[in-house]
Amino acid sequence: MERIPILKMGDLLLVTIQVDMHDRLAMTLQDDLTSRIVKDRARGVLIDISALDIVDSFIGRMISNTAAMARILDARTVLVGMQPAVAITLVELGLTLHGVRTALNVEKGVQLLKQSAD
Amino acid sequence: MERIPILKMGDLLLVTIQVDMHDRLAMTLQDDLTSRIVKDRARGVLIDISALDIVDSFIGRMISNTAAMARILDARTVLVGMQPAVAITLVELGLTLHGVRTALNVEKGVQLLKQSAD
Repeated sequence: MERIPILKMGDLLLVTIQVDMHDRLAMTLQDDLTSRIVKDRARGVLIDISALDIVDSFIGRMISNTAAMARILDARTVLVGMQPAVAITLVELGLTLHGVRTALNVEKGVQLLKQSAD
Repeated sequence: MERIPILKMGDLLLVTIQVDMHDRLAMTLQDDLTSRIVKDRARGVLIDISALDIVDSFIGRMISNTAAMARILDARTVLVGMQPAVAITLVELGLTLHGVRTALNVEKGVQLLKQSAD
């Protein structure tokens, strides 16, 4: 597949990352997501990484950058569904996800975004 | 990736199919989904295929079977995000998706499931 689908749920957008990220796919996702934030007037973005067993520095940076782009467009980003092993690896490798909030799952992520909108 | 993630949204489950389906992946999805319907007491399942350019008879049958399994467990299935080209191909090939309702996107799918729950 060449694109990661972006699903609209009310004024939120949901992205589920299932495939291994590479440069071009990450750029396509950032292009698509920023366009969709503007087009759909989205207030929040949920990025689900429950399918990822590994988050390396490339994916970490991609997520941070995507969140920064969304932030400039006035949309908050919440990263959801992180596996325990991924959290362990992130801390052990000293990787931080700048400007990205996390929530246990999509439901809690939606709650977090709704609260912060008030 | 070896699994397709299943996201919980209230009493609905959302599955986004992004990768090419093969036998084992389809079986894993059906196992996971039926378990999750029971565990999460889900009333509906949304299957998003907006990332698929092609739906062949294998995927069509997989979706029909999954919907039939969900139905027995008292959950309705709505297929969302079908690309125009996929609709054309399905009709031209004479493939029918037995027992599966469709909606334009996730939002309309959620509405459809909420209506039918009343």
